[in-house]
Amino acid sequence: MDIRINLNRLKDDLESFSQFGRNPKGGVTRPSFSKADLEARRWLKGKIEEAGLDFHQDGAGNIFGRLGRGEGKIVMAGSHIDTVINGGMFDGAVGVLAALECLRTVKEGEIPLTKPLEVVSFTDEEGNLVGDFLGSRAFTGQLNEEELRRGATQFGPPLKDILAGTEFTIDSILGAHRQAPRIESYLELHIEQDETLDTEGLPIGIVDQIAGKHYRWCSFIGKTGHAATTPLELRHDAFLGLADFALKATRLVAADFYGSMVTIGKVIVLPGSFSNVPGQADFSFEFRSLSKATLRDLEKALFSLAEDVASTRGLMFASKIVDKTEPVTIPARIFQLLKDECDKLDYPSLELPSGPGHDAQILAGLTDVGMIFIPCVDGISHSPQEAVRWEDLEKGANLLLQVLIQLAR
Amino acid sequence: MDIRINLNRLKDDLESFSQFGRNPKGGVTRPSFSKADLEARRWLKGKIEEAGLDFHQDGAGNIFGRLGRGEGKIVMAGSHIDTVINGGMFDGAVGVLAALECLRTVKEGEIPLTKPLEVVSFTDEEGNLVGDFLGSRAFTGQLNEEELRRGATQFGPPLKDILAGTEFTIDSILGAHRQAPRIESYLELHIEQDETLDTEGLPIGIVDQIAGKHYRWCSFIGKTGHAATTPLELRHDAFLGLADFALKATRLVAADFYGSMVTIGKVIVLPGSFSNVPGQADFSFEFRSLSKATLRDLEKALFSLAEDVASTRGLMFASKIVDKTEPVTIPARIFQLLKDECDKLDYPSLELPSGPGHDAQILAGLTDVGMIFIPCVDGISHSPQEAVRWEDLEKGANLLLQVLIQLAR
Repeated sequence: MDIRINLNRLKDDLESFSQFGRNPKGGVTRPSFSKADLEARRWLKGKIEEAGLDFHQDGAGNIFGRLGRGEGKIVMAGSHIDTVINGGMFDGAVGVLAALECLRTVKEGEIPLTKPLEVVSFTDEEGNLVGDFLGSRAFTGQLNEEELRRGATQFGPPLKDILAGTEFTIDSILGAHRQAPRIESYLELHIEQDETLDTEGLPIGIVDQIAGKHYRWCSFIGKTGHAATTPLELRHDAFLGLADFALKATRLVAADFYGSMVTIGKVIVLPGSFSNVPGQADFSFEFRSLSKATLRDLEKALFSLAEDVASTRGLMFASKIVDKTEPVTIPARIFQLLKDECDKLDYPSLELPSGPGHDAQILAGLTDVGMIFIPCVDGISHSPQEAVRWEDLEKGANLLLQVLIQLAR
Repeated sequence: MDIRINLNRLKDDLESFSQFGRNPKGGVTRPSFSKADLEARRWLKGKIEEAGLDFHQDGAGNIFGRLGRGEGKIVMAGSHIDTVINGGMFDGAVGVLAALECLRTVKEGEIPLTKPLEVVSFTDEEGNLVGDFLGSRAFTGQLNEEELRRGATQFGPPLKDILAGTEFTIDSILGAHRQAPRIESYLELHIEQDETLDTEGLPIGIVDQIAGKHYRWCSFIGKTGHAATTPLELRHDAFLGLADFALKATRLVAADFYGSMVTIGKVIVLPGSFSNVPGQADFSFEFRSLSKATLRDLEKALFSLAEDVASTRGLMFASKIVDKTEPVTIPARIFQLLKDECDKLDYPSLELPSGPGHDAQILAGLTDVGMIFIPCVDGISHSPQEAVRWEDLEKGANLLLQVLIQLAR
């Protein structure tokens, strides 16, 4: 169908929108329910209503704009409007504003559809509040109620206090999934957050898989002692256990799980002084794989390795799960539709997996999902330097438009 | 000479003295210039004067009690009265109070001597203020003036504020060494702080060497990146660099520097989150050896290893010195005298090195030193569980008495 989005209007929207939470040095800080986010939400509501779409929001503060009435399942597209601290203006926002632009284009073009279309912005994708994907988890009924009620947030006051400035409560968030409509499919346009497309000079990436991950908080526990008097061969040095495990785990993944990732990003050694042999080493442990079977095998191999290292060195090993997402394979009918429409538009593209998680991964628990990547310059994201080329964004939004029309026809 | 210390009097002194800074659960917290320490100093001054010794103190708050006038070089014995936080009642205090008991015994026995004897208590051996060995470093003119004037303390307010409650100033501490008399030798009785003597069932250890150490604060610096998108083979993971170095450094010391020690006790990984590849790993790095030549070779080997690890992994390595003490070999004349007097007393003994540093190590820059160890039960020290057997303390003090008499004759 020979219809195209209006790039200038989308560009104006993105530039206006980027002022909410803009830092003096150019970054954007807009965590969900911050002052900047509440302003951004009012602006988005205004734009949805101005476009003649039906605005509504659920108990988790997820924002929706619907085009078309009727009883059919909804074809949904969107992403999130929150950012990390001192992040960029494109991560998330392009997916929401491009979807809005698609719906405006469909409405103005008076394209006849049998199913409603809906733009969505999910609350707190970035995990500044309690865990990643708060909004999409609330929408799909996948929240951890206990953790949410505990309400410890990443940087700020307890969740309860943050919500006090809004119309939402922990109970309304937990109840959000009961308001969710039936969904035909969910599409998300997002920047790649890596350099593959930019390096290859390609405007479009069609995602085939989204990696699943474990976030775990682990410990090796040994025995502390005086660094001056405990002979090396009699030590149960918990940090050396962690060092041994870190190197072996990396080698294991590189050799036997190519394409999977393992990262130890935070370490606390106790008691933590110059002259004490470490009695305990706590660490964050993250591993990711693209398929459920691989992630399961990797988990098994890594924990068996940790137990081996612990027993060889006279240590204990302990692990508790902090967060977990399942790997997603994009359903063939959506993936093929994305490829076909991309070919029809004559846009060069690449099939590629997504390392980072996205709201689409959470929606996959409820419906068929698809993802379109556009390049970000030098692969930089979560940074004030985050940038896209407007012609790539135009192509990504036009592909989203064609696919939404095909799905809702 | 058939003269012996009075154990009951020494025991009473130790028990009275342990009340200064006693915690409800039994530990002792008596950092230099704390309220507990100021009370302990008043008590010690009273005991010195009651014994008929000449009390004086220097600009660093080191406390002295002299027996005998005359112009001869002084034979000195002592240790320190400060403790770590929640430490034990014997570490340091036995050395000061046993020396006091020896001087009382000599005076009461009217032993004719040609040289003055002096009991000393050095300020802040434990390093609760600025660096270890503040008092003995001030006495011997080995302070780091810049660090002292900066005055950042371990746990509390700046040094200047702590000194405000005393008659001392940073300038008086820096000037203390100008008041120091000429010293013939320095003897120190101390608990072993390790389990060798206790395990062997021996009451006396005669120290032959005191280990020297480097305290360094080091960093591997790489490049941070997103844990989801940075392929393992393209990472410059600073923590994996540290892990590699920690294991190789331990193997190097175990294989080529038997008896030396290497410890990584504190680690900070940056940026320090689940999903960032570590761009920097900062760590405390401590290594100890018993001889100057070995410590120098070890330093060279360890830093060459660190540079190798860094260059193999595309990292930078940086290191700055935090503290450093030289290894000390006990001079033959003192060591032999200790052995001979011990044999005369018919006390079973062991020659052994000291891993931990002591004031004697600092005094070795000025005069000949000797050290007597007595066992502590199960090797436990720096703990409320620190304990000695009274009969071992009696033997240690009697050996100190004989050696002081021989040196001051």
